[in-house]
Amino acid sequence: MIRARVNVLLKEDVMDPQGKAVGEALNSLGHHEVRNVRVGRCFDLNLTGEDPAAARVAIVEMCEQLLANTVIEKYDIHLVSAAGGMS
Amino acid sequence: MIRARVNVLLKEDVMDPQGKAVGEALNSLGHHEVRNVRVGRCFDLNLTGEDPAAARVAIVEMCEQLLANTVIEKYDIHLVSAAGGMS
Repeated sequence: MIRARVNVLLKEDVMDPQGKAVGEALNSLGHHEVRNVRVGRCFDLNLTGEDPAAARVAIVEMCEQLLANTVIEKYDIHLVSAAGGMS
Repeated sequence: MIRARVNVLLKEDVMDPQGKAVGEALNSLGHHEVRNVRVGRCFDLNLTGEDPAAARVAIVEMCEQLLANTVIEKYDIHLVSAAGGMS
């Protein structure tokens, strides 16, 4: 079993009003150190199989097909090894 | 400047119908290796300051106050160092 986390966020040059609202809310709560916030989605996936390279290829395909809108969004993939580390 | 990523997901024992729908969609697209999917939100934060320990304390407070509903959601925090590594 392979565990993976995929983060999908708007590209840097795309406006993120939700992130702006969260940043302003944090500022108004007293967190004046917050400068910029971007909001996105994350997906925790459990996959059968033991080959991390094959899993990564499959997940890229999932991102391109369904998980991300690659016109305006970027994604990054972190595989969680059996030992629990991120890569 | 400190960059941090916060992931907020439903706790394991809370039903995640959105994750279930995404998992079924991936299966129907031919990704039969996908067993379980959980969907959550992610926040990329830029904070002023250079102290990672202080930033982590502040971010925990932000999660408890605003970013997560800790009754049903869990969160994890990854600070991105100046060198670009995750911790």
